[in-house]
Amino acid sequence: MARSRQQPSLREVFATKLRELRHSQGLSQEKLAELCGLHRTYVGSVERAERNVSIDNIEKFAGALGVAVRDLFEGAR
Amino acid sequence: MARSRQQPSLREVFATKLRELRHSQGLSQEKLAELCGLHRTYVGSVERAERNVSIDNIEKFAGALGVAVRDLFEGAR
Repeated sequence: MARSRQQPSLREVFATKLRELRHSQGLSQEKLAELCGLHRTYVGSVERAERNVSIDNIEKFAGALGVAVRDLFEGAR
Repeated sequence: MARSRQQPSLREVFATKLRELRHSQGLSQEKLAELCGLHRTYVGSVERAERNVSIDNIEKFAGALGVAVRDLFEGAR
């Protein structure tokens, strides 16, 4: 589905917030992946909004970052 | 992973909120499914927390219900 620049997909909102929160904690993709029990290349692809990430993995990301799930969707409609 | 009754999984939080918001709008599972372009049995299984629902479908549910994504995660850690 075509989307304007003004209306990013939920994947894109999530990808941006994930990277932002990871950076703010000084974590590498490798380290975050390790904390989540996921693969480093998977984390990279989620941060590029290439993956249709599942709710179970969303929960892992929030847990590993120590943030509320809603923080990963900040800015979403 | 074992969880206490006091700490529902994110799937469970989402399932409960989805059903609650659907009911509050007087929608059947069939109608919500139709609005989302998903199958009725799929909606039922998501509401029973049986499915590892993806971010693209989370976006469809929020859009169909006319709610913010964060509303579907209300009560999540």
